[in-house]
Amino acid sequence: MTSPVGLHRVVEPAGVLPQAAWRLDARSEIGPNEVRISVERLNLDAASFRQLRDKHGGDGDAVRAEVLDIIATRGKMQNPVTGSGGMLIGTVAEAGRRSPLGLKAGERVATLVSLTLTPLVITDGLARWDGLSEQVPCEGWAILFARSIAAVLPEDLDPQLSLAVLDVCGAPALTERVVRRYVAERPAGFGPVAVAVVGGAGKSGSLSLAAARRAGAGRTVGVVPVAAERDALVAAGLADEVVVADARDPVGLSVAVTSALGVPADVTVVCVDVPGCEHGAVLATADGGTVVFFSMATSFAAAALGAEGLAADVTMLVGNGYVPGHAELALELLRDVPGVRGLFEARLAAD
Amino acid sequence: MTSPVGLHRVVEPAGVLPQAAWRLDARSEIGPNEVRISVERLNLDAASFRQLRDKHGGDGDAVRAEVLDIIATRGKMQNPVTGSGGMLIGTVAEAGRRSPLGLKAGERVATLVSLTLTPLVITDGLARWDGLSEQVPCEGWAILFARSIAAVLPEDLDPQLSLAVLDVCGAPALTERVVRRYVAERPAGFGPVAVAVVGGAGKSGSLSLAAARRAGAGRTVGVVPVAAERDALVAAGLADEVVVADARDPVGLSVAVTSALGVPADVTVVCVDVPGCEHGAVLATADGGTVVFFSMATSFAAAALGAEGLAADVTMLVGNGYVPGHAELALELLRDVPGVRGLFEARLAAD
Repeated sequence: MTSPVGLHRVVEPAGVLPQAAWRLDARSEIGPNEVRISVERLNLDAASFRQLRDKHGGDGDAVRAEVLDIIATRGKMQNPVTGSGGMLIGTVAEAGRRSPLGLKAGERVATLVSLTLTPLVITDGLARWDGLSEQVPCEGWAILFARSIAAVLPEDLDPQLSLAVLDVCGAPALTERVVRRYVAERPAGFGPVAVAVVGGAGKSGSLSLAAARRAGAGRTVGVVPVAAERDALVAAGLADEVVVADARDPVGLSVAVTSALGVPADVTVVCVDVPGCEHGAVLATADGGTVVFFSMATSFAAAALGAEGLAADVTMLVGNGYVPGHAELALELLRDVPGVRGLFEARLAAD
Repeated sequence: MTSPVGLHRVVEPAGVLPQAAWRLDARSEIGPNEVRISVERLNLDAASFRQLRDKHGGDGDAVRAEVLDIIATRGKMQNPVTGSGGMLIGTVAEAGRRSPLGLKAGERVATLVSLTLTPLVITDGLARWDGLSEQVPCEGWAILFARSIAAVLPEDLDPQLSLAVLDVCGAPALTERVVRRYVAERPAGFGPVAVAVVGGAGKSGSLSLAAARRAGAGRTVGVVPVAAERDALVAAGLADEVVVADARDPVGLSVAVTSALGVPADVTVVCVDVPGCEHGAVLATADGGTVVFFSMATSFAAAALGAEGLAADVTMLVGNGYVPGHAELALELLRDVPGVRGLFEARLAAD
């Protein structure tokens, strides 16, 4: 039996898991517990796409060439600089008889594990992609392991919309769990649980705001970098307050959050894909509070040393992209909360 | 009034906190809420010292020259590669009249905030240091801010012993807090709370094992890289089981932990200062469990994407070096647990 976590697909270095590997074996033949997907679209991680776009000065052809080269060289789409990948949608081509994923040939699915550990081959040279957007139409195949996760795409939603939501579904699920705990443990007579979401108008940010409110947050603030996002988030009605602040400015961020909430945040969720937001998030959070870092641009050392240097008694979570039920919760928020759906549809229309 | 978090000492880049700054102003004149320390010894962060030693092939003179250069250039001891620093001991030279730290001139103290944010000047050229150990005897001065933390050194303990313990006192304090929560929430009739400490024979590791047991962990395993550490940890009696495993080998680590405990760990504490331990720690931890990363070599992206790629429902904590009462707890463990004291004294004797 082939390894449930894909160890048999690791080419180099030996002994590591597929995500840590430099190169994977992406051959199309599957083991009895694997699944092969006919890929139709990749959704590149925002931090990865931004790095590639900036490196090539917005030259789409150069971005496309580098993505092709990464996939051909590594057998997976993992940006060597950011370390991040993204996800994909496609159709089940073949499911091994011992695969525990419950997928059938012909089903249209989105993978909920990162492209950084998914064996991938592109066969059309990305001819239909202009290199200017995170959404990459393509042909090729990908392999799922026994312990991978994939969601069958719902029929009532546009597949691109589903993909955009599923790409970040770990964030609202973990936010919901953390906020619910603060709500349950808040002594009677104390103020409402206050939540700040940095990058509140983005994909993971808007879902996290909706999840915080659903979990019982009594007061929420969305932090955005520019006036256009402020207007969009105010119109979406997902937060009690919306403020414009530079998340890389620790003092500016903490003053903005604390002023908007009236108190420091019990839970601060960082959803912006730029480096240098760790200190501001810590400063904006109350003693006994929690910071959840979802940005792949987060520096472990900056967070750890920053909190220590500020003598801040805050719990800091590495945003795990997997929480049981995460896909269902995110799709539910998309369906139930018009403000979330509006932001996602506007974003897709702009792409 | 000067900034409680030291913003007025940041030279470049403007607007960041001292820890994120490239260069600090380490002038000796203090503001009304600052404290100046006459430094007698630095304790370099283990990851930083290892990087410097390896870079210079064990040439102590070259290591000393680079440490001097870093401090002179940056106004603080922050390794540009690892981003980490360490801590120091010294004597209070002058306490501003508005300092809230409660320190008096002449008191011997250890700083509990990182050297990465502490303005520092060396005046003796590190003439008494051979460059071959993390412990750096020196002369010079350092500045504490209003929100810095320092502990007066206890009179019943050797100052080097106190310094070594205080350097890592965040780890046992956070371990104690996390394990205590699992113990409190464990339903009756279920098995004991199981804790794995990777790097269990080291400074933070041995204290964390002792803290886990004090918090009620029913079963503990210490993971060590070599037989000599195994023998030392077995003799110290700090863990129910001691196993030798390479923490960078995910499958090897998880099999070792699970075999020793009989189940995956409820709480896994990572205390080894080598890169690549994230996946093994996640694999070794039960669904619903928690991984606490104390190693400055931890990669945020590897942890986040690794857990997602393994569909592992684990909570991952960035090890915050500050928990209220951390210094007191660590010194208490040193005094009360002979195995901890034995390991620390042996380590100091070997240095």
